[in-house]
Amino acid sequence: MSRIETLDARTVELLARFRTGAVPALARAISVVEGQRPGFQALLHEVMASGPQARRIGFTGPPGAGKSSLVAAAATTYRVRDEHVGVVAVDPTSPYSGGALLGDRIRMNDVATDPGIFIRSMATRGSLGGLATTTKEVVDLMDGFGFARILIETVGVGQTELEITAAADTVVVVLVPESGDAIQAMKAGLMEIADVFVVNKADRPGSARLVKELRQALHLRAGSALKDIPAHHGVDLGRALKRERTTDSAAQEVEDWPVPVLTTNALTNEGVDDLVDAVERHRSWLVESGQLEERRRDRAEGRVRDVVNRELQRITWSSDEVRRLLGEGVLGIAGGEETPYSVARRITDALLR
Amino acid sequence: MSRIETLDARTVELLARFRTGAVPALARAISVVEGQRPGFQALLHEVMASGPQARRIGFTGPPGAGKSSLVAAAATTYRVRDEHVGVVAVDPTSPYSGGALLGDRIRMNDVATDPGIFIRSMATRGSLGGLATTTKEVVDLMDGFGFARILIETVGVGQTELEITAAADTVVVVLVPESGDAIQAMKAGLMEIADVFVVNKADRPGSARLVKELRQALHLRAGSALKDIPAHHGVDLGRALKRERTTDSAAQEVEDWPVPVLTTNALTNEGVDDLVDAVERHRSWLVESGQLEERRRDRAEGRVRDVVNRELQRITWSSDEVRRLLGEGVLGIAGGEETPYSVARRITDALLR
Repeated sequence: MSRIETLDARTVELLARFRTGAVPALARAISVVEGQRPGFQALLHEVMASGPQARRIGFTGPPGAGKSSLVAAAATTYRVRDEHVGVVAVDPTSPYSGGALLGDRIRMNDVATDPGIFIRSMATRGSLGGLATTTKEVVDLMDGFGFARILIETVGVGQTELEITAAADTVVVVLVPESGDAIQAMKAGLMEIADVFVVNKADRPGSARLVKELRQALHLRAGSALKDIPAHHGVDLGRALKRERTTDSAAQEVEDWPVPVLTTNALTNEGVDDLVDAVERHRSWLVESGQLEERRRDRAEGRVRDVVNRELQRITWSSDEVRRLLGEGVLGIAGGEETPYSVARRITDALLR
Repeated sequence: MSRIETLDARTVELLARFRTGAVPALARAISVVEGQRPGFQALLHEVMASGPQARRIGFTGPPGAGKSSLVAAAATTYRVRDEHVGVVAVDPTSPYSGGALLGDRIRMNDVATDPGIFIRSMATRGSLGGLATTTKEVVDLMDGFGFARILIETVGVGQTELEITAAADTVVVVLVPESGDAIQAMKAGLMEIADVFVVNKADRPGSARLVKELRQALHLRAGSALKDIPAHHGVDLGRALKRERTTDSAAQEVEDWPVPVLTTNALTNEGVDDLVDAVERHRSWLVESGQLEERRRDRAEGRVRDVVNRELQRITWSSDEVRRLLGEGVLGIAGGEETPYSVARRITDALLR
């Protein structure tokens, strides 16, 4: 594969160390990508040249569902099975869940002393919905580095949980009895994105009922082929719908994936083995049904769009002419001779003429 | 002011009705902008030609703080004072707060029968952080329509509450005893964005303590001039910092704004009059200190950037050549001959050559 730009000496050296499996080189590569330092795109291009290899597993759900603990437990289980695991935790730095998050992070540190596991916590700064392009790029770095399983934890708030479908091969939706009933999960579009449902903290009252409700809802959904349900949501389910449709057509050869509803107690490790088994079974189904290829193609397209949009913004706002037009324009708006729309028009005209 | 494009007959007619103060024309204009229908930018350009007139007041805080009830109470108070009020509520369609939101919305309907008030609830779909460009454009339409006060309600989750500073002249941060202590508010950057603090549901235990803590924290902050605090946050406080700095320089003529900590009970209307008084006092301070001009200039610059970025994306992804390059590129990535970065490079080169 050709290079997209000439690599400078530092990047060449970094890539060489990265390819020997030196963990500090991975950490350094992540810093370069997070900071969008010169050459970061060329670095990603080189690292991604061999294509995706890792199994990417997303964990999402409402705050307080114990996702971090469950991710730590799943990571430990993978380590017992001798798989190298990367973890990307998207930390919304929300003050209101500060206590719970801190507790979870401490637990995460238990597994952080193992060299076969690499954990990266990221802020959501400047990002759409929940998963910044940079976050996805860090996942790609971990993949290129050789982690066989990458666990991506996102806090589901509003619609952000839907974005995980664009980053993961398998989506695990984590609920607890306190997070509401199956109707709420349906309303939130969680039925469409879940490849595996987990009711965590299963020793709490109400968990058996939630499991039963989720199974009933999934059964109803399978019966109606779900085609009409997304129209009732206020949320964008384009991606989820796409999955549904593909599943329908692929169903001629391979049976639909029966979304399991599992129970876990991350703190005692109960049910975590079964969860990991279910995730691995889903992987086999993805390959057999052709869905993996489909999801990867969607992901590649989304990444191209993200990178082009980011690059256009970078080029635009670092242009001297654009900055001059912006400065003059803001004065014109203050003086009542312009609006943001007339200024914006002048800038786009200058860029694309 | 010149036009940015020739207006079509429907837009001319819509503008004429809009300018007579016909509420259906406002609703129609909002639909045109929300749907980004042809000519929506020309429409905004015309509506915004007279510059901002309304006082824009943002209400933010954690879920469950009773923001919607407080906004409804403040809107009612403004109506008693004979001011026309527009309300924009950003609804994250979160399933987990579904019940509370529904209760709040019903309460909102009490005031919705009054013709001097216009309420618009918006989803956060496809937006950065919390306030989509479209949301801000709807605020501009309400301003251009003639509402003297516009109340913007956003749910604060993670960093989204910081974005309200880019949309409002005055930011009211609403807390309840359950939302944590003053330290958490400081960590969340709320100290930097609040022009007025409100402890709502003030009849609950712990509210007096929270008020005291907030006042102490504000006092400490005033003492240290706050210059060092933002560096400790993981969040982007560029805008907030900017405000601080400007305040410092303006302080030579006008005293710093002393952020009040008020208590309310939105359900019984207690303290709401004082809150509205404080907001109006802040307005006078904004004008005298030169901060209003500053905030409006920042807002104009931000809007130009948003509009240019959106327009570049629209032009890019509707180009036949770009779509062809994208389609071919995705196949190339699947075949292992390309990465998203080499495809993105080809697309940006094609656009900007």
